[in-house]
Amino acid sequence: MVSQWFNTEADIDLIRLRGTVVVIEAFQMLCPGCVSHGLPQAQAIHDMFPRDQVSVIGLHSVFEHHAAMTPTSLEAFLHEYRIAFPVGVDREGEGASPQTMAAYEMRGTPTLVLIDCKGNRRAQYFGQVQDLRIGYDIATLLNETNVVPVQDVPANTDEVTGDDSGCRAPLR
Amino acid sequence: MVSQWFNTEADIDLIRLRGTVVVIEAFQMLCPGCVSHGLPQAQAIHDMFPRDQVSVIGLHSVFEHHAAMTPTSLEAFLHEYRIAFPVGVDREGEGASPQTMAAYEMRGTPTLVLIDCKGNRRAQYFGQVQDLRIGYDIATLLNETNVVPVQDVPANTDEVTGDDSGCRAPLR
Amino acid sequence: MVSQWFNTEADIDLIRLRGTVVVIEAFQMLCPGCVSHGLPQAQAIHDMFPRDQVSVIGLHSVFEHHAAMTPTSLEAFLHEYRIAFPVGVDREGEGASPQTMAAYEMRGTPTLVLIDCKGNRRAQYFGQVQDLRIGYDIATLLNETNVVPVQDVPANTDEVTGDDSGCRAPLR
Amino acid sequence: MVSQWFNTEADIDLIRLRGTVVVIEAFQMLCPGCVSHGLPQAQAIHDMFPRDQVSVIGLHSVFEHHAAMTPTSLEAFLHEYRIAFPVGVDREGEGASPQTMAAYEMRGTPTLVLIDCKGNRRAQYFGQVQDLRIGYDIATLLNETNVVPVQDVPANTDEVTGDDSGCRAPLR
Repeated sequence: MVSQWFNTEADIDLIRLRGTVVVIEAFQMLCPGCVSHGLPQAQAIHDMFPRDQVSVIGLHSVFEHHAAMTPTSLEAFLHEYRIAFPVGVDREGEGASPQTMAAYEMRGTPTLVLIDCKGNRRAQYFGQVQDLRIGYDIATLLNETNVVPVQDVPANTDEVTGDDSGCRAPLR
Repeated sequence: MVSQWFNTEADIDLIRLRGTVVVIEAFQMLCPGCVSHGLPQAQAIHDMFPRDQVSVIGLHSVFEHHAAMTPTSLEAFLHEYRIAFPVGVDREGEGASPQTMAAYEMRGTPTLVLIDCKGNRRAQYFGQVQDLRIGYDIATLLNETNVVPVQDVPANTDEVTGDDSGCRAPLR
Repeated sequence: MVSQWFNTEADIDLIRLRGTVVVIEAFQMLCPGCVSHGLPQAQAIHDMFPRDQVSVIGLHSVFEHHAAMTPTSLEAFLHEYRIAFPVGVDREGEGASPQTMAAYEMRGTPTLVLIDCKGNRRAQYFGQVQDLRIGYDIATLLNETNVVPVQDVPANTDEVTGDDSGCRAPLR
Repeated sequence: MVSQWFNTEADIDLIRLRGTVVVIEAFQMLCPGCVSHGLPQAQAIHDMFPRDQVSVIGLHSVFEHHAAMTPTSLEAFLHEYRIAFPVGVDREGEGASPQTMAAYEMRGTPTLVLIDCKGNRRAQYFGQVQDLRIGYDIATLLNETNVVPVQDVPANTDEVTGDDSGCRAPLR
């Protein structure tokens, strides 16, 4: 139920994403909570996981200010905010809400939807949701199937991921 | 290898925590990265997971300014920063580093250590590590054993976790 | 050189703002630095100073993605981001840059311009500029004229502006 | 009423600072609001203004956990948090509050005190206070005397202070 795609060469079909956990970030480009929280979170998920395990998709679900959030405006927004994952335009519906938003009974934006490797919708969060929770959910969904090999936790070695606010011990 | 405990009535023994994923947050109370990142992250983990699944333990691993970071100072620090999980004082070693820090070959503070349900150390991060990653790791460790029932991802309903920066759709 | 105004009943004329320090916040609604820094700063200035001392004006100076940042889109943006001060649309020019932007030789957005009580442009900052600096500049401009009475610094009493991260001394 | 100084070769005497605006940041090293807000603000003031115009002084005003916030602990704290301005230890008083804190009738920490060029205490803020306000206050105090030449606002040229979230216009 997408009328137009950005950031992808071919249209995206959820059925062809089976075998991966699918993260759908429903947003509106003029929704402050989407800009400050939802989209950066989706981008972080997109950056962290390999494509054959997790598929992140944006969904532009406009339910207000339709004339202000056209596909033309969206394209400029995605460019300026450097959104790298595919984004679909949720197809206009009969009421104010677009079709996917209505079908999923979303309460507003941002809404983050998690779909498991078999294609079942398993979680749906409206508003801000913690990264700890989403990381936990994705791992749980990846682990319950054997469709893809699960990325192991890092080996028993130090991994320097710190900035300079950490305190480094003297060399031994 | 702990010389004193805070925030717990009985001393803590890792062996008795078998069956849970153990998160050890090694810190120094005067380390800026611990105060701004490591300890709030440990507190968020402590707040999110049930005690019979995840055990969060702080470890005060002082390797510098020993006279400034005494147990007396630590106690006031834990009170002022409202740290709620148990914190042990890493026992003084022969070199500058305390005993657990040396045994785990930590590079500095903050260091976050993950121990699986069978008691094996599985991951160790020095510096800042993303919440998404830690949430993922904890779920992976919880799911690989059947020692405890794994908390399911939320059911297919909206869960309002939003603040008022989200945009609420009109009622249907 | 404004083609349309929002958030004001009557068009705004800089000449009629003489006697106040004028703060012009030039922005584009799809410029991330404007959304995260420039506009919140302008709003904070608008909130802090009385209208007869400081006049805050937004200027939508679009030099790219013209089709995406129309007055219709701007109106929705101002509503969603709760911008309360008057905003003018910088009139289209002959090149990519609109007229005021070109006349003021702005380098991009956000740009904050300070105009003194006599109507002279006195400072112009491109990009992020510290609140400390802007507070200092505004006071300097207000103090150099006697056009308006300068707001005194607070009297010699405690003023509780704190949140609960402050430590309150016991009552004496 | 200071028992010991850090970050200065000679003891500091307020009388000898006449002719400058003096900013006193009263804090406790284990007070979360001081660490997250008050001290970074004082450091930013110290970084912005020339020494012959504005003097920033820290004051360690301990009214609780005295055994945990000794001069030895303070010295390590100042080192780890890279506090560059002079810091005095507020001398112990008869009650819980130290002497300067009691004399100034401070309500707790952080408290920011502003003293004008003639040595009169003019403002005192407990808790968080905005940078815009402090910048304004300092300029007002500097401008009301002619003791020091007031730093002019920047000339009518662009000043690039931006990060890369700003949008740069194409060259003309």
